Amino acid sequence: MNNESLQVQDIGEQGLLKILQCFCPAEIIGDDAAVLSTEPDQSLVVTTDVLVDGVHFSDRTTSPKDVGWRSAAANLSDLAAMGASGLGITVGLGLPGNVAVNWVEQLYQGMTECLQQYNIPIVGGDVVRSPVITISITAFGQAHPNRIIYRNKARVGDAIVVTGVHGASAAGLELLVHSQLGGSLSDSARLALIKAHQRPQPRLDVLPLLWQILDPSSPLPLPVSGMDSSDGLADAIVQICRASCVGAVINSTKIPLPTAFQNWLTKEQALEYALYGGEDFELVLCLPKEPASLLVEQLGKGAAIIGTIVEGSTALLGDDNQKTPDQVLTLSRGFRHFES
Amino acid sequence: MNNESLQVQDIGEQGLLKILQCFCPAEIIGDDAAVLSTEPDQSLVVTTDVLVDGVHFSDRTTSPKDVGWRSAAANLSDLAAMGASGLGITVGLGLPGNVAVNWVEQLYQGMTECLQQYNIPIVGGDVVRSPVITISITAFGQAHPNRIIYRNKARVGDAIVVTGVHGASAAGLELLVHSQLGGSLSDSARLALIKAHQRPQPRLDVLPLLWQILDPSSPLPLPVSGMDSSDGLADAIVQICRASCVGAVINSTKIPLPTAFQNWLTKEQALEYALYGGEDFELVLCLPKEPASLLVEQLGKGAAIIGTIVEGSTALLGDDNQKTPDQVLTLSRGFRHFES
Repeated sequence: MNNESLQVQDIGEQGLLKILQCFCPAEIIGDDAAVLSTEPDQSLVVTTDVLVDGVHFSDRTTSPKDVGWRSAAANLSDLAAMGASGLGITVGLGLPGNVAVNWVEQLYQGMTECLQQYNIPIVGGDVVRSPVITISITAFGQAHPNRIIYRNKARVGDAIVVTGVHGASAAGLELLVHSQLGGSLSDSARLALIKAHQRPQPRLDVLPLLWQILDPSSPLPLPVSGMDSSDGLADAIVQICRASCVGAVINSTKIPLPTAFQNWLTKEQALEYALYGGEDFELVLCLPKEPASLLVEQLGKGAAIIGTIVEGSTALLGDDNQKTPDQVLTLSRGFRHFES
Repeated sequence: MNNESLQVQDIGEQGLLKILQCFCPAEIIGDDAAVLSTEPDQSLVVTTDVLVDGVHFSDRTTSPKDVGWRSAAANLSDLAAMGASGLGITVGLGLPGNVAVNWVEQLYQGMTECLQQYNIPIVGGDVVRSPVITISITAFGQAHPNRIIYRNKARVGDAIVVTGVHGASAAGLELLVHSQLGGSLSDSARLALIKAHQRPQPRLDVLPLLWQILDPSSPLPLPVSGMDSSDGLADAIVQICRASCVGAVINSTKIPLPTAFQNWLTKEQALEYALYGGEDFELVLCLPKEPASLLVEQLGKGAAIIGTIVEGSTALLGDDNQKTPDQVLTLSRGFRHFES
């Protein structure tokens, strides 16, 4: 039997753990729990996600390496959305016995590649038998209590910043599932969209810029709120408005779109992807206009102010053309988990 | 449709989350991640477990409330085994659409009942669709760096303490699966064994006593090592010996057994349950003889010194009778996850 065809049931739990431990820092392995140092005066920030084969990922569109990258990225994005730097993740795996050992190694390789960009270790986990591949990741980070980004602190007058383009991930998935689509796209444009889906970047890099701009020496909580756009840009804006008891006015022409959309999609299609596609893992931040402009300038690469927080309770989407009626944004049109 | 027959797919993810949030502290809900305070000078301790329906639990032997209790208890036991006090847990749930909402509520009720004994909150989670019920728990705790209980610090001459009786949980499971067994047991003895299986107690209560006995004002790491006996008492002893590069001599007559075993099992059967049954969730601690005796005295209820750490690399089981040859302890004979 060659290495490629080796299955999980051939080497058992202990054999698999031995392989997976190579992806963890050596000093952390082999106790009932992992021990990590935290800095004083920091709060602990914790988030968890469960991914199920056939529900959240599929061999048809995603290699095990990309499944690993994406599942790590989703959790790190939640940390970034809270203003937290990452300390580590734990990985709970449920595996059928006939899964290739190589598949599991590739999964860990993908997770590690994403995590290593931020020096975040896999600090522990569990591997169990299951009839369906299940990946459960818990990420934990730390943040100074004055620098936590809650979604319920948006204030009237705040500018609404997005840290990058929206719609690319959903369009990339569409191109993977329906390869006949996008005939007008160049190869590089097609690959760029697909990569946006397979290798999304959690925006932990935004935080140091943000703190620098907002004067971190202040003894008060910093004037920034927001969340990530993992469930769609529209969802993020509506969630922030609901949590903060405010409204929002969004200028649709300001929403940064992938350049590849220009020669492929209508304006309406492009906006649909951007607002409701999801999984772009950008941050949607509300902060006063002056620091907002500075942040956008320093971020570059598609960052933009797309609107303003206003009084009220609805998020309205308009454009520069006064003839188009405003549209009320709604929560994600993404698939609803349990409905048949 | 009455409430009892309501299924997860009838109320969707959002409906279910609304119900489950009642089990979480209100101030923690509704952001990308949960925020927790930690004390300065404490290390973060993290552990994770995945439980799969049909693999780790079954409706035949375990009610949803007991599944909840046991899954919380297993994680808290890992924290206790590291010397950590609990800060919170996250719960990732994979659920088929046809699971009764009431089943999920009972699961959370059971987890909460176990956690509330130690004031540990459920701080977050994820609920997703899955073909099989999957429960993934990550527990967070904190411990002073000098008070962390590693398994690789056992020293020659240490007494080996168990914090309570062993074998009760496995015997309780056996009685649940094969109800014709144990005909000689009184009803109360039978129920006590079954309860030991359904409602194991993580031994976080041991830690304050231990610190008090070991002089917590010392600036040095405290002289205690060990782990929990979740995978069996023999497994714990062998793991400690391997990690610490030492041997152990165990006196089988000192291993505390459930009183119910006396009129039911042979000496050999009783020892088999105690050594290899698993899931008793007691602590196996190695520490100098004097504090070990004090600890056993203060713990009462089945706590005992069962042996001594010696030079070498094997864990030998003997008894007071010099005619019986010593037996070498091996790792758990518990089921091996992936082998068919």
